[in-house]
Amino acid sequence: MDSINNLIKHFNDFPGIGPRQAKRFVYYLLTRDNAGLRELSSLIAKLKQSVDVCEECFRFFPRGAKKTELCSVCADPGRNRSLLMIVPRDTDLETIEKSDTYRGTYFVLGGSIPILEKNPEERVRLEPLLTYLKKRVAAKNPELREVILAMNFNPEGENTAETLVEILQPVITAANIKISNLGRGLSTGTEIEYTDSETLKNALKNRQ
Amino acid sequence: MDSINNLIKHFNDFPGIGPRQAKRFVYYLLTRDNAGLRELSSLIAKLKQSVDVCEECFRFFPRGAKKTELCSVCADPGRNRSLLMIVPRDTDLETIEKSDTYRGTYFVLGGSIPILEKNPEERVRLEPLLTYLKKRVAAKNPELREVILAMNFNPEGENTAETLVEILQPVITAANIKISNLGRGLSTGTEIEYTDSETLKNALKNRQ
Amino acid sequence: MDSINNLIKHFNDFPGIGPRQAKRFVYYLLTRDNAGLRELSSLIAKLKQSVDVCEECFRFFPRGAKKTELCSVCADPGRNRSLLMIVPRDTDLETIEKSDTYRGTYFVLGGSIPILEKNPEERVRLEPLLTYLKKRVAAKNPELREVILAMNFNPEGENTAETLVEILQPVITAANIKISNLGRGLSTGTEIEYTDSETLKNALKNRQ
Amino acid sequence: MDSINNLIKHFNDFPGIGPRQAKRFVYYLLTRDNAGLRELSSLIAKLKQSVDVCEECFRFFPRGAKKTELCSVCADPGRNRSLLMIVPRDTDLETIEKSDTYRGTYFVLGGSIPILEKNPEERVRLEPLLTYLKKRVAAKNPELREVILAMNFNPEGENTAETLVEILQPVITAANIKISNLGRGLSTGTEIEYTDSETLKNALKNRQ
Repeated sequence: MDSINNLIKHFNDFPGIGPRQAKRFVYYLLTRDNAGLRELSSLIAKLKQSVDVCEECFRFFPRGAKKTELCSVCADPGRNRSLLMIVPRDTDLETIEKSDTYRGTYFVLGGSIPILEKNPEERVRLEPLLTYLKKRVAAKNPELREVILAMNFNPEGENTAETLVEILQPVITAANIKISNLGRGLSTGTEIEYTDSETLKNALKNRQ
Repeated sequence: MDSINNLIKHFNDFPGIGPRQAKRFVYYLLTRDNAGLRELSSLIAKLKQSVDVCEECFRFFPRGAKKTELCSVCADPGRNRSLLMIVPRDTDLETIEKSDTYRGTYFVLGGSIPILEKNPEERVRLEPLLTYLKKRVAAKNPELREVILAMNFNPEGENTAETLVEILQPVITAANIKISNLGRGLSTGTEIEYTDSETLKNALKNRQ
Repeated sequence: MDSINNLIKHFNDFPGIGPRQAKRFVYYLLTRDNAGLRELSSLIAKLKQSVDVCEECFRFFPRGAKKTELCSVCADPGRNRSLLMIVPRDTDLETIEKSDTYRGTYFVLGGSIPILEKNPEERVRLEPLLTYLKKRVAAKNPELREVILAMNFNPEGENTAETLVEILQPVITAANIKISNLGRGLSTGTEIEYTDSETLKNALKNRQ
Repeated sequence: MDSINNLIKHFNDFPGIGPRQAKRFVYYLLTRDNAGLRELSSLIAKLKQSVDVCEECFRFFPRGAKKTELCSVCADPGRNRSLLMIVPRDTDLETIEKSDTYRGTYFVLGGSIPILEKNPEERVRLEPLLTYLKKRVAAKNPELREVILAMNFNPEGENTAETLVEILQPVITAANIKISNLGRGLSTGTEIEYTDSETLKNALKNRQ
């Protein structure tokens, strides 16, 4: 394969990009000057060196002047360390941070577990999660009291939550930690008439 | 105005119908045979005579062979009469019935109360609701224990719920009845990354 | 079937209306006052009496104070009677009139002919078209010089045009009348990159 | 700006990509292995060296084993060199080639000329076009007989066509070359009822 088509193939692998748009990307790059292309190329080549992974929550964050082990949330003494929220991806964590509704800590799972997946530990960070959870339980600074599963409300998210409950249960039970899921019910803008049965059931069960 | 344009204007008032579709309706009717038009005309003329309004919940229902006062839900001895759910419209009641998640009774408010509406009692059935609530409280067959406000999750729905709480409060408090709203949180299909702050806040508050 | 469900069924037959919206129509009508329902019912019952069909082009038009045989276009001495445009429906005629690009006369076919339709003459006004065409040829006021087929550019429209050519050919040829189709090519807003092959072929063939 | 945000900014400049998707691209790249990132980086850095620009039509094409001056179309002796089609961009040329409706030659303008643009020659290849046109006129292998302007059917495309006509006129006239635009009218799938006036006017004018 020639290098243009190879580049198109690379862009085609980007999330949400089809072959036509991948090709437009290449034509767009051909209109860029050499300095711009060199910079983009260099940023991609050095991407991983310019990014640190938080040793606690596994979130990606820009490497500063000197290497740090913890991301801004995990390093923040003002966060409530009795709460640990498990989110599928970095982008989920960002959405929650932007909503300004949560002051606890996080763990980024790195994805969701598809139904029937045989090796979930190769998909997401199950081993690191368990290690981190045990560390948090042992640390008691302060005591960890609740693990919140913030999974997407779809079959893959449900499956991920169930797998997590199974895996975390022994540690959770031993340490007397509560495990919770995000509440379900009507979301902003919902009109009763157009609401699915599952959501109505949850909204009714969780009425208050 | 000639009668074609008058008919177009009528159809234009139908919910969700613009002038272009209203005109298509008229052209469509012109292709129908006379028997069909006569039947449609007659069904519309007699619509109200062929429909009863439930004396309890104010729901519309088809008039049977002999006139009945109560709709199928209100007449059903199997329904849980300790619960009363207030819904905006007949269509909301139908969605909830179809979801098969609720076995209590209903009251159809007849709409929602827009923000800044000065005469809400002309918009929706506030007076009849209060009368019916008092009757249910007095009846004790069995005791009414909870009023559920099943309003749309939008500003008009919020406003309606607030107005209802104000109006119902004296009766509710005197009779020691709980007043609740449908639960809020993630609805089916929600992905964390794309969730609005309001919904995240509710999902977090209502986690379990 | 009770009369409410019968009415829902009627509305469900309206163009573009599904069962849910049909039901909303009925609930909407239940909120109308009796005078409004009676007027709507009456307009529908008398629809055909309040409408005339043009004796020439078969277009529907509102009946005026006294019955007239011809619609406003066919009665207009300013129209160019050397041109006859055949359109599928009244709504197509209206779109063309609004575009203010055509000053000839029309014939409303009453629909299109689906592919493989065995009895096209039961679907659309083939017989009346032929009769009218012969009359126009004979009249010579002035001589009819061109028949324009203004069909939709889709398989059903293509099929209709082909059937019309077959049926009209003898008269057309004998009277030395030109038969034409609307031109094909790029339509407003078209971008070359996203244009289908068929349209490009036509645009290239019809370049000028 | 840190290098992650710098990379997000680069992706944000890609055609059709907003800030949210730009960020997702970066997170996606962080999941790629080092070999994949190095390859992508290298393909971008060497993009321009791996691409040739056709000396005749200015189309981009992958550089083969040895450098060639002409793209596959311009080098093809089977193409009809009496026709020259001017297209805005490489992607337009590709769409036309795929449609398999044109066997002449091309010139890629490199874009369109916005209305009120004061320096169109800095936007698109006007000077190179004029040079190439003169060369083709002089060459007579065979004689160039028609220049086809294949511009988008929108204000910018119209403006580009008008500018081209002005600039090319002297050469065109002297050499007795025809200048044409792609035909206009109904495009595939068009229904008369929903057609805009401009398109109807063109369809009527170009009827045949």
